[in-house]
Amino acid sequence: MRKHRLMTPGPSPVPEETLLELAQPMFHHRTAEFEAILRQVLIDLKYVFDTQNDVLILTSSGTGAMESAVVNMVPRGGKAIVLAAGRFGERWSEIAAAFGIEVVLVQVSPGQSVQPTQLVSALRAHPDVAAVFATLCETSTGAGHDIAAFGDIVSKTPAILVVDAISGGGAMECRTDGWGVDVLVTGSQKALMMPPGLAFVTVSGKAWARAEQFNPQAFYFDLGKMRQKISVPDTPFTSAHTLIKALGTSLGKIRQEGIEQVWSRHRRLAAACRAGIRALGLELFAQQPADAVTTVTVPRNLDVSKLLARLVERFGIKLVGGQDELKGRIFRIAHMGYMDEFDIMGTISALELVLAELEWKLEPGRAVAETQRVLASPDGR
Amino acid sequence: MRKHRLMTPGPSPVPEETLLELAQPMFHHRTAEFEAILRQVLIDLKYVFDTQNDVLILTSSGTGAMESAVVNMVPRGGKAIVLAAGRFGERWSEIAAAFGIEVVLVQVSPGQSVQPTQLVSALRAHPDVAAVFATLCETSTGAGHDIAAFGDIVSKTPAILVVDAISGGGAMECRTDGWGVDVLVTGSQKALMMPPGLAFVTVSGKAWARAEQFNPQAFYFDLGKMRQKISVPDTPFTSAHTLIKALGTSLGKIRQEGIEQVWSRHRRLAAACRAGIRALGLELFAQQPADAVTTVTVPRNLDVSKLLARLVERFGIKLVGGQDELKGRIFRIAHMGYMDEFDIMGTISALELVLAELEWKLEPGRAVAETQRVLASPDGR
Repeated sequence: MRKHRLMTPGPSPVPEETLLELAQPMFHHRTAEFEAILRQVLIDLKYVFDTQNDVLILTSSGTGAMESAVVNMVPRGGKAIVLAAGRFGERWSEIAAAFGIEVVLVQVSPGQSVQPTQLVSALRAHPDVAAVFATLCETSTGAGHDIAAFGDIVSKTPAILVVDAISGGGAMECRTDGWGVDVLVTGSQKALMMPPGLAFVTVSGKAWARAEQFNPQAFYFDLGKMRQKISVPDTPFTSAHTLIKALGTSLGKIRQEGIEQVWSRHRRLAAACRAGIRALGLELFAQQPADAVTTVTVPRNLDVSKLLARLVERFGIKLVGGQDELKGRIFRIAHMGYMDEFDIMGTISALELVLAELEWKLEPGRAVAETQRVLASPDGR
Repeated sequence: MRKHRLMTPGPSPVPEETLLELAQPMFHHRTAEFEAILRQVLIDLKYVFDTQNDVLILTSSGTGAMESAVVNMVPRGGKAIVLAAGRFGERWSEIAAAFGIEVVLVQVSPGQSVQPTQLVSALRAHPDVAAVFATLCETSTGAGHDIAAFGDIVSKTPAILVVDAISGGGAMECRTDGWGVDVLVTGSQKALMMPPGLAFVTVSGKAWARAEQFNPQAFYFDLGKMRQKISVPDTPFTSAHTLIKALGTSLGKIRQEGIEQVWSRHRRLAAACRAGIRALGLELFAQQPADAVTTVTVPRNLDVSKLLARLVERFGIKLVGGQDELKGRIFRIAHMGYMDEFDIMGTISALELVLAELEWKLEPGRAVAETQRVLASPDGR
């Protein structure tokens, strides 16, 4: 008997009710029934993203939604600032390059977060940029960003603020309208508790005004074309409508809990996880850690591949290591979406047991106690 | 008690085994288990598309795969022939226009099919085109195309033959390699018996050589980037991996029946459906009908919206009408994928009953008898 525990930064676990929805008989998408479902899903997405802006649903992974933001906000030959704290921040640059957009890259070392002052300097040096691309939670390093501060800075300029909230959205506090995020990009397979296949883009009035100024290098990812259909509501091309219907079930769970409560749950779980990790004698990799994923520095004397393999074998816990140059240097514990206190205590406990087996020096139970202490405290610290 | 019968040209019914697969617990995509699943799915897709060429899996609807074919086969400023027999053929032109590609449009009236001689003339007048874009089954009109003849013509030129087999692939005979199709594009939600969300692109050696000549106006749809990962096998971005796993179940059914048998089943069902329609005193709209969908001309004295509504109310049979300028002029009966003789006999019988109620002159049972006659005949005519 083996249970599976997916503590990975996407895909993340999907509630059983949502899975069962996916097994329902196929239905047609151009019907009054589906229109009603889509209408409710759009309302719920606005609630989750804390916005009154338009929300568009794309049938693609998160990267497709990132591309849609790039090509609809910046024309070929235009210029943009990219704030990159890792592989996913860098993806903004790669997309821009593919479409002939000049990039001003503000990059920090892995584990660091881009600071608001760096954005101020970049904007001062390049006041002609069309957009600023940022990342809520840099999944590859576990670094979080102060999007509220970025929004405050960019909203005073003609530039469009685009935020990749693919792994952060629905987990970490993110007030799209309150913080002045013009375009927020999210994927389905993270904190929204869905399989991959859908992505979401919110578009502010300022962003729509920008999109109207030029013909995008886009067809499938043409946001203007999608906008024409949202009043129905409909999508210009066949959407993954069975995923949209199932998304309704997952969003219903978020609505029931309340988005503020969902954010504070993630905050508590992240704090408890970090406390447990420190009590294990391990170090956190991110200086300004995001609440969606905890990244741990691998100490020299620990065989991380053995650690990750044993966690799978013994407890069905799937964690992931680092990618690219971070391979072997970090491992990551995701706590996004369908995740509760039990999952965190269990994971820290499993880490204790397996680390002890690997002859890592620790006192059994101490890290779990630290995790409990945080979960028991009223302010989750 | 109401059963649902989706006789629509996408989405089409999904086998129960495949639906149940979609309700399985979430799993991680970067594992040996999923690699093995993906490897088998790629083998099965090659079998279904009758090709030894590379097959790439996209997380998008069919239109996304069409875009990938356009931007990877023709550079900005390049020129292409589009053979259009309806709305989906025209989509090739719209995509090309969005990316600054000059289009030589060879268009026929709705209900007609583009003839090979028209392609010969177009190629003679424009020998410098980079590609020819065609459609196996024009879903909007039910017209089929002689792809074998197109392949014969284009293979003698430096142009790339790209075929939209979104609604035809897996239903109608289509010998990718035998007919010289360089790029074949398909979606999951038609004859492959899956929900929407995945699309497929096959790429020949000639097509890869073309793609290597220039940087595509693409990031998410960059085929070269996907090619780098297929030997793993993997995808450059998070794929809709739960759909890919479930696709394995649907493809397994096709393999079990045999692709030649699947094609001949569709041929028989289409012939039986057409015979039934004619015996109802109705006219077929397509001159060269495709075997994936039968399109019927709406006679002046028939209220088609009433007909379609009653079929849903009474039998749960969902057919669709025409789109754009064909609205009210045609209705369409899809018989693609998870569809058998019972479904066709039942649909013709339901049409007989409802048409009689709408005071359409007919002899009850005669059309069903015609359908049976075709199904009973050894050569299905």
